[in-house]
Amino acid sequence: MAAAPLTGAGQRAIRLVLEYDGTDFAGWQIQARDRTVQGELALALQTLLQEPICPIGAGRTDAGTHALGQVAHFHTHSTLPLLRLQRGLNSLLPPDIAVLRAEEAPADFHVRYSALSKRYRYRIRAAKSAIARRQVWTLYYPLDLEAMQAATRALPGAHSFAAFCNQDPVPENFTCCVLECGWARQEGEMVFEIEADRFLRHMVRILVGTMVEIGRGRRAPEEMAALLDSADRRRAGATAPAHGLCLVRVSYGE
Amino acid sequence: MAAAPLTGAGQRAIRLVLEYDGTDFAGWQIQARDRTVQGELALALQTLLQEPICPIGAGRTDAGTHALGQVAHFHTHSTLPLLRLQRGLNSLLPPDIAVLRAEEAPADFHVRYSALSKRYRYRIRAAKSAIARRQVWTLYYPLDLEAMQAATRALPGAHSFAAFCNQDPVPENFTCCVLECGWARQEGEMVFEIEADRFLRHMVRILVGTMVEIGRGRRAPEEMAALLDSADRRRAGATAPAHGLCLVRVSYGE
Repeated sequence: MAAAPLTGAGQRAIRLVLEYDGTDFAGWQIQARDRTVQGELALALQTLLQEPICPIGAGRTDAGTHALGQVAHFHTHSTLPLLRLQRGLNSLLPPDIAVLRAEEAPADFHVRYSALSKRYRYRIRAAKSAIARRQVWTLYYPLDLEAMQAATRALPGAHSFAAFCNQDPVPENFTCCVLECGWARQEGEMVFEIEADRFLRHMVRILVGTMVEIGRGRRAPEEMAALLDSADRRRAGATAPAHGLCLVRVSYGE
Repeated sequence: MAAAPLTGAGQRAIRLVLEYDGTDFAGWQIQARDRTVQGELALALQTLLQEPICPIGAGRTDAGTHALGQVAHFHTHSTLPLLRLQRGLNSLLPPDIAVLRAEEAPADFHVRYSALSKRYRYRIRAAKSAIARRQVWTLYYPLDLEAMQAATRALPGAHSFAAFCNQDPVPENFTCCVLECGWARQEGEMVFEIEADRFLRHMVRILVGTMVEIGRGRRAPEEMAALLDSADRRRAGATAPAHGLCLVRVSYGE
């Protein structure tokens, strides 16, 4: 059975691809007092389209976490052409949010339920950096990248990631299917990328924090499989800082 | 005749390679009231080494202009090892300045007079960017990169750049020797790089501002040669914004 359309009569579904610098936001999700990406976007949409609109995001990024390809959708009665919508939003939005694309979406499109996978990137540097300082975690001790890469071997496939998530609140379902993940050296940085069908709260940050302990030689790479099996958050490593993390893209199989 | 050593008895000459985010600085050069890179560096050196020190920089970058490889030198009586000097400075300096390297320099080394060439980079984007917004000039009209590249053909070699410099104050010598320059497309950006033995005030920014007018079709690429010959600042284009510019490296022929 096909899903019922989510748009009402005469409404368009629109999908936005967004880039933002998470530094000065209290995360994606709208909040009463703090500055959030969803809040700024809702305000710009309402100003431009003169309708009450609350855009839905594909990933609820944490305070300080960035996006190069967050996706959001909303419904509107407006007939504004897409290019004018994009330009209007970019004028109204603050400098730290950019609309990279605006597209018509099918009536039954949902930015979260329609997504096949999301991809996150985590950047680590071994020395102080002035220009990239808001996008990298700087660690002054040496890390064994081969050991960290060996640790990733336990991750691909469907597992409970209960050991690698913040359980406040406790999620209904701990299972995520990791499609691809790995470390690479890029321009003096150590970069971790992971693609999965879904992510739990702080999941990438706890994975990175644990693998950094492996890179320092404080844990063995083989421990990752045991940690997954344990489903015990207390046995995994510390949560890496939010600002090293970036939501790179959301895939819809198109 | 060899140049007399610049260092006094018992002094070391030290060379620093610096990266900085120029956004929140009133440029390199120390000023009474405003926050400058030279001022912050002098303060950190004096705190660390307990001597009055005024570091000299290879390039006096404008307010808002960045550096990936600025070079500075200073003299000290301190015997602090280089690695401890670098780490100490990086702890004392604010997050938007990083010391990438600290090296012993010959006694007759001067960061400006010993330099063979400097290299600058200017970045232009055609769409709003959130994460790179402090490092790129965003222009919403199409630019003909081939015409801009054709315009660079007049630049290599030694010429008077009087038409391409701010003449307040009037420099003693307008001649610069351009070793290499050109435009390239890199990751959705148009990037201009230029290497020369010396640069005049605002030179790269006025060259870029003029070439952008060529890229918009408002001037012909052939005009560059005539502009150089004219030595008339009023005939060249507008000064491009400082924040698109970055001092990439200083070469000493080592």
